[in-house]
Amino acid sequence: MRNALVAALMLSSGAALADEGQWQPYQMPAIADKLKQRGIDIPAQQLADLSQYPMNAVVGLGYCTASFVSPKGLVVTNHHCAYRAIQYNTKPEHNYLELGFLASTLDKEPSAGPNERLYVTEAVTDVTAKVTANLPTEPLARYEAIEANKKALIKECEADDNYRCSVRSFHNGLEYYLIKQLIIRDVRLVYAPPESVGGYGGDIDNFEFPRHSGDFTFLRAYVGKDGKPAPYSEDNVPYVPKSYLKVNADGVKAGDGVFVAGYPGSTSRYRLTSELEFASDWLYPVLADRYQRQIDTIEAMGADNEDISIKYAGTLAGNANRMKKLNGLLDGFRATDIAGIKQSREDAFVDWLKQSPAMNPKLVQELETLIAENQEAIQTSFYFKNAQSSTLLNAANRLYRLAKEKQKPDAQRESGYQERDMKLFEASLKRINRSFEQSVDKTLWLQDIQAYQGQSHKVAVLDELLTYDNHASLQDKIAGMYSLTGLTDADTRLQWMDKSPQDFENSADPFIRLAVALYDENMALEKAEKELAGRLSMARPDYMAAVIDYYKANDWPVYPDANGTLRITYGMVDGYQSRDALYKQPFTRLEGITAKHTGVEPFNAPQKVLDAIAKGDMDEHKVESVYADGRGLICRLFSCLDKPEEFNSVPVNFLSSVDTTGGNSGSPVFNGKGELVGLNFDSTYEAITKDWFFNPTITRAVHVDIRYVLWMMDKVDNAQNLIEELDLVRD
Amino acid sequence: MRNALVAALMLSSGAALADEGQWQPYQMPAIADKLKQRGIDIPAQQLADLSQYPMNAVVGLGYCTASFVSPKGLVVTNHHCAYRAIQYNTKPEHNYLELGFLASTLDKEPSAGPNERLYVTEAVTDVTAKVTANLPTEPLARYEAIEANKKALIKECEADDNYRCSVRSFHNGLEYYLIKQLIIRDVRLVYAPPESVGGYGGDIDNFEFPRHSGDFTFLRAYVGKDGKPAPYSEDNVPYVPKSYLKVNADGVKAGDGVFVAGYPGSTSRYRLTSELEFASDWLYPVLADRYQRQIDTIEAMGADNEDISIKYAGTLAGNANRMKKLNGLLDGFRATDIAGIKQSREDAFVDWLKQSPAMNPKLVQELETLIAENQEAIQTSFYFKNAQSSTLLNAANRLYRLAKEKQKPDAQRESGYQERDMKLFEASLKRINRSFEQSVDKTLWLQDIQAYQGQSHKVAVLDELLTYDNHASLQDKIAGMYSLTGLTDADTRLQWMDKSPQDFENSADPFIRLAVALYDENMALEKAEKELAGRLSMARPDYMAAVIDYYKANDWPVYPDANGTLRITYGMVDGYQSRDALYKQPFTRLEGITAKHTGVEPFNAPQKVLDAIAKGDMDEHKVESVYADGRGLICRLFSCLDKPEEFNSVPVNFLSSVDTTGGNSGSPVFNGKGELVGLNFDSTYEAITKDWFFNPTITRAVHVDIRYVLWMMDKVDNAQNLIEELDLVRD
Repeated sequence: MRNALVAALMLSSGAALADEGQWQPYQMPAIADKLKQRGIDIPAQQLADLSQYPMNAVVGLGYCTASFVSPKGLVVTNHHCAYRAIQYNTKPEHNYLELGFLASTLDKEPSAGPNERLYVTEAVTDVTAKVTANLPTEPLARYEAIEANKKALIKECEADDNYRCSVRSFHNGLEYYLIKQLIIRDVRLVYAPPESVGGYGGDIDNFEFPRHSGDFTFLRAYVGKDGKPAPYSEDNVPYVPKSYLKVNADGVKAGDGVFVAGYPGSTSRYRLTSELEFASDWLYPVLADRYQRQIDTIEAMGADNEDISIKYAGTLAGNANRMKKLNGLLDGFRATDIAGIKQSREDAFVDWLKQSPAMNPKLVQELETLIAENQEAIQTSFYFKNAQSSTLLNAANRLYRLAKEKQKPDAQRESGYQERDMKLFEASLKRINRSFEQSVDKTLWLQDIQAYQGQSHKVAVLDELLTYDNHASLQDKIAGMYSLTGLTDADTRLQWMDKSPQDFENSADPFIRLAVALYDENMALEKAEKELAGRLSMARPDYMAAVIDYYKANDWPVYPDANGTLRITYGMVDGYQSRDALYKQPFTRLEGITAKHTGVEPFNAPQKVLDAIAKGDMDEHKVESVYADGRGLICRLFSCLDKPEEFNSVPVNFLSSVDTTGGNSGSPVFNGKGELVGLNFDSTYEAITKDWFFNPTITRAVHVDIRYVLWMMDKVDNAQNLIEELDLVRD
Repeated sequence: MRNALVAALMLSSGAALADEGQWQPYQMPAIADKLKQRGIDIPAQQLADLSQYPMNAVVGLGYCTASFVSPKGLVVTNHHCAYRAIQYNTKPEHNYLELGFLASTLDKEPSAGPNERLYVTEAVTDVTAKVTANLPTEPLARYEAIEANKKALIKECEADDNYRCSVRSFHNGLEYYLIKQLIIRDVRLVYAPPESVGGYGGDIDNFEFPRHSGDFTFLRAYVGKDGKPAPYSEDNVPYVPKSYLKVNADGVKAGDGVFVAGYPGSTSRYRLTSELEFASDWLYPVLADRYQRQIDTIEAMGADNEDISIKYAGTLAGNANRMKKLNGLLDGFRATDIAGIKQSREDAFVDWLKQSPAMNPKLVQELETLIAENQEAIQTSFYFKNAQSSTLLNAANRLYRLAKEKQKPDAQRESGYQERDMKLFEASLKRINRSFEQSVDKTLWLQDIQAYQGQSHKVAVLDELLTYDNHASLQDKIAGMYSLTGLTDADTRLQWMDKSPQDFENSADPFIRLAVALYDENMALEKAEKELAGRLSMARPDYMAAVIDYYKANDWPVYPDANGTLRITYGMVDGYQSRDALYKQPFTRLEGITAKHTGVEPFNAPQKVLDAIAKGDMDEHKVESVYADGRGLICRLFSCLDKPEEFNSVPVNFLSSVDTTGGNSGSPVFNGKGELVGLNFDSTYEAITKDWFFNPTITRAVHVDIRYVLWMMDKVDNAQNLIEELDLVRD
C-alpha cells in the first residue's frame, strides 16, 4: 500500500507544487506566470514592492496579521487575534466578549491595552554576507559570532526607537534577512462582534469545515499629533497609513484566483524524513500526553472553582488547540504516508547528489548524524526542563539570569536580556497573576517532577534538591515552597529585576534558591545546545544549498520555510474531497448558522443574527451563485438535471488552496486585482500536516467572506459609520 | 423562518413528488411515463405482473426482502437479514459470524434454522368489498366484523398449507387486499462474508454515509423432491424458481434510473399534523428515554458479566438502532419544519374540502376528535402496559389468554391465538431463554414499575398487586417472584400451552397469578382500544377517500402508506447535500474501506480484504468513472480544471433517491432493464423522517453495489462455484 500511494503522489509532484509556497515578496516576479495563470492580474512587480499597494497596507500584530482598510488607520484582523484587546475592555458592567462592541465615533474607541502593537514591515534586506562573514569553525564560537553579528545589525537598525528590527534565518541559516518594522504603540478597539459570532463553533469547529465563524474585529492605529508612533494618549490622532485596502463587496466565486499576505510562523517542509519520524513517533505523542494531562488536571480543579476556571481559560483553550493540532498531525501521518513520500524524494535527491561531481555525496549522511545527536539531546533534557515548569521557578530562573547577564555589556548579553527586551520582560512578569493559581501551578509542577522521576536520565543537582529534607513527602516540600515564596507577588517579582547576583545567592526565597542551585546545570545544557546549533549552522545551510540546486535543476520553484516574516501565498477558491464520497464545497451560507444553532455554547448564535437571517434581510450582500456560470454542484453532476444552483444567500466562510500556517490568522485575502475579499483564520483538519508536507488535493485554508463581514456591519450591527470609511468597490 | 421554509418547500411540492412513492405493483402502468423519464425501460405492464420477470423472483423473509438469482434457488439478501441463519450455524469450532462461510458444494449448505422461511407473493387480490360488506355501525361490533371477515378470507386462502395468507388494510382501511404467499420451509446458508465485512462500521455507521458495508449473504431455497415446499430434509432438492434475476456486472452510474422491489413495513405519510406532533412532542421522546435507560442498565450489568453481554447483545443492538432512528426523527423534525409543511398542505386540503359541495367539510375536525381521544388513551395506558414488561409476566399473560381463547371455536379466536398461529407461539416461548437473564429482566421491570408509580394515572388492581405484603420492599417482592416461578424453564412454559383456565386460576406460580389478576383490566383496555379502532375504521377511510379525491383533482399520484406488502419504488443514482457546504457523492470506493480501518471493531476489515485492496486486484470489477461521461465532481465544478475524475476502483456502496423503509432491507436494486445492480440495506440519517414526510432533496437509500459483491466473491473468497450459477450480463 505504502509503495503504491507514494508512487501515485510522486507522479503528480510536478503539478502538486502549483499552489504550494509561502513566498518572500521579492520572489513574486519569479512566479509571475503562475500568478497570471491563476487569474492574479495585479503585477508581480507591484506585489514585490513593500512600499506599494497592497503590501504597504499589511501589518503584523506580533502573533497574527492584519491590514489597513481606511485612510484613518482602521485595521481589520481576526476576532481571535483581537481577543486580548476585547478581554482588556470587558468589565462586569459591559461584557464586550459576550455582547460585542461598536464605537459609534472616534472618541468612543478605547485603548486595546498597553501591550498591543501594530508592526508595519517597511524593509527587508539581505544581510547574509554580514551575518556569515568570517565565521569561526569552532561550533560554540561560530554560534556566538552569528548571534553577535545579528545583534549588531539590530542595534544599528533600531537607532530610531519607532522601529523594531530582527534578523531572521532563511533556509535554515543559508540566508539572513534584516526586517525593519515601524511600531505603532497606540492601538484601539473599534468594532468586535459577540464571541458567539467571532468564535461561533468554538473548539468543536476549530480546524473543521463546514465553518460559520465571523472571525473578524476592527482596530484603529493612533499616533502622536506629529504623525509619529507614540504610546496611548488622549491627544493622539488616527494614523494615516501609506495606503489602505480596497474592499470588494462582490467577493469571489469558486475557481477565482486569490492571494494572501501575512506572517506565517513556522514550517518544516525541507526537514529530513528522520526529523518527521522523530516528531511523529516520539515528540508529538509525548507532547500530546502532557497537554492532555494538563487539560484533565485543570478541568478537574476548575470544575468547582470559578476563579481557577476563569484564570486558566486561556491555558485550556491553548492546550485544546495544541491537542487538536497534534491529533491532526498524527491522524494525517496515518492517513497519508508522508514519511514514505519524503523518503522517496530524499532518495531521489541523494541519487542526484551522487551524480553531481561538484556535490558532497555524504551531505545527507553528515546532517543525519548531527540530527540524531540533537534528537537524543532533546529526549534527554525534555523531562529535566519540564521539571522546572513551575511558573515561579521559571520567573526565578529568568530573573537570576537577568542579574547575571547584566554583568556584561549590553551587546554581549543573551538575546532576551538586553536593554531593548526589558519592557517585554517586565510586562511578562506583571502578567503572571492573571493566569496563575497556586494550587493548579503546584499540581502541574508536581506532575512534571514525577514524570521526570519516572525517567532514567537523572540530573544529580535536581535530584538532591527534590529530596524531602524535613518534609513528609515531595508534595509537602513543594507546598512549603509555595507558602514561603514572595514571588507570587507582582511587585516583588519586579523588584528582583534590579537585584545583583549576590542578592539572589543570599536570598532565602525557596524558588530563588532553587534557581541559583540549578543555574550551572541549565547553563551547561544551554552551552551544549549552542555547540550543537553551531555545528548545525554549518551542516544545514550546506544541505539547503544542495537542495536548492537540485530543485533548480528540476525547474521546481523554491521558497523558504515559514519563519514569522512577511510572505505571500496564492491559490484558488476551491472545495476538496475530504473523505471517500464526501466533498466539501467551498462556500458556507448564512442559513448554515441557523442550522447549527443549538443555543448552547459554542453554537449559540445571537438572536439578532438569527432574526436577520430569518427575515432574509440580505439585500446587496446576497449572491445567487458562488459558481462562475451561475450553476452549481448538482447540475454539474448530471447534465440531465438542468437546474440552477440555489445558493441565494450571503457567503459566510470560504475555502481556498493558499498555503498558510499559524501566524497567518487575520491575513487579508485578496482577489486577483488586489482587493480585500476575506480574512484568513484557519485551516481544515486534513491540512494540518502541511507544516511538514503540502498535499495540494486536501490542503485548504478557511477564510471569513468579506460579504459576511459587510452584512454583519450593515444588517445586524448598523455599523454604517465604519462602512462609510471603507473604500468599497464592486466587480 | 417557519413560514419562509414552508413556502419554499410547498412551491416545489409538485416536482418533489417525482421519486416519492412505495407503489403497489398494479399501479406501475399508471406511472409508466415517470418510469420512462427516469430511464426505466422495462415495460410498466411487465412490472405489474407478479407472475413475470422480475417480480416473480422477489421474495420476502418476513422482516426483510430477498431475490432469486439462479435456477437452483440461490437467494441473495442482506447479511443483517441472514444474521440469525449465520448465528444458528456458528459453533465454538467454526465462528461463521467472525470468519464468514462459503459452501463449496450443495451438500455443504447447512440449514438456516427451523424457523427460517422464504415467502413468494403469488397473488394480491382486492377484497375491500368482502371485508367491508354490511358492517355494523356500533364501533366494537364493527371492529369485530372486520376481523371476522378477514379471518374467513385467510382461512379460505390457506386451505393449501403451502401458502400463508394475510389481509392487509391500505389507505388506513379504505381498501383491503388479500396477499397469498408460497412458503418455502427449507432455507439453507450458502455464502456469508465475515461480520467485519457484512456489518463493517456497525452501529457507528448505521444510518450514515459514506458507507462501506458488504451487507450481503446468499441463501438457498430447498423443496421436496415433488417440487413442493417441505420442512428441512436431507432428501430435499434445490427449488427451481419461476425466474431468477439477471445480474449486471457493469452496475450503474450516477444519474441512472433504478427501481427497488420489496416489503416496506410501515409509513405514516397521510397522517394528520396533530399525529406527527404527538409523535415528536410526546411519544418519541418518551420512547427514547426508556430505550436509553434500558441500554444504560444492560450495559452496566453486562460490563463484568459475559453471560449477560452475550444474551442481551441482540436487545442492545435493537435498542441502539431504535435510539438512532428516534434521534434521527427528532433531529429531522428540528432541521426541517415538517409539521409546518404538513399543516400548510392540510390547510389547503381543508380549503378544497369546503369548496367541494359533495364533501363533508367537518371531515378533518371529526377525525381530529377521535385522534385526540386515541392519543389520550395511549398516554394513559403507556406506563401501565410497561409495568407488565417482565418477560415472564408477558409469557404468563399470553399463556392465560391462550387458555381463554381456546374456549372459543378457532374462527372466533383473537388473531395470534388461532391454530395457524401455534407454531410461531411455541417458537417464541422456546426462544425466551436465549436472550433472558433473571437479574436484568428483574431490574428493567422494576424500573418500568417505578416509572408507572411516578405517574398520576393509577390502575387499582395493579397497585394492590404491587404492595409489598410481607416483603421489605417492592424489590424484595419482585425478587421473590423470580425465585418462585417455574416459567424460567422452557418446558414448563410449553406445558402451560395445554392447560385450562382453571389450571391457571388455581396455580401458585406468582407470574401466573399476576396474569390472572390483571386479565380483566387488560381485556377492558383492549376492548376500549377496539371500540376506538372501530370508530376510526369509519373516520379514517372517509378522510383518506377525500384526500385521494383531492390528490386526483390536483393530478398528484397516490400510493398507499407502507404496510409490509410488496411494493415498487423508483428513483435515480444520486448524491445529496447533507449539510451546508457538505455534499455526499453517490459512490464509495474500495480504498475507503482501508481508510476507515482501525483494526478495532466495527472498523476491523479482514486482512484478506485489505490485502486484496492493497494489491489493486480489481480486474473487470473496477470502473474508471461512476459518472456517465467519465468526468466527475472536480472537473464539473470548474470547467477550467479539465481533468478526468479519478474513481478507478470497485464501487462499494451507492446512494439512490428511491423511497424505502424498514422491511426493504435486502431488496434487489434494479437498473432500467430490470437487472440486479445492488442490494438495498439502509437509509441516510437525514432521510429518517421520510416515514412522515418524503423530502426528495435529502432522502437517499443506501445500497451495496453488485460490483463489490462480485469482487468479494471473485477476488477475496474465491466463490467461483456461485459466480458460475449467476446469469451475469454486461451493458
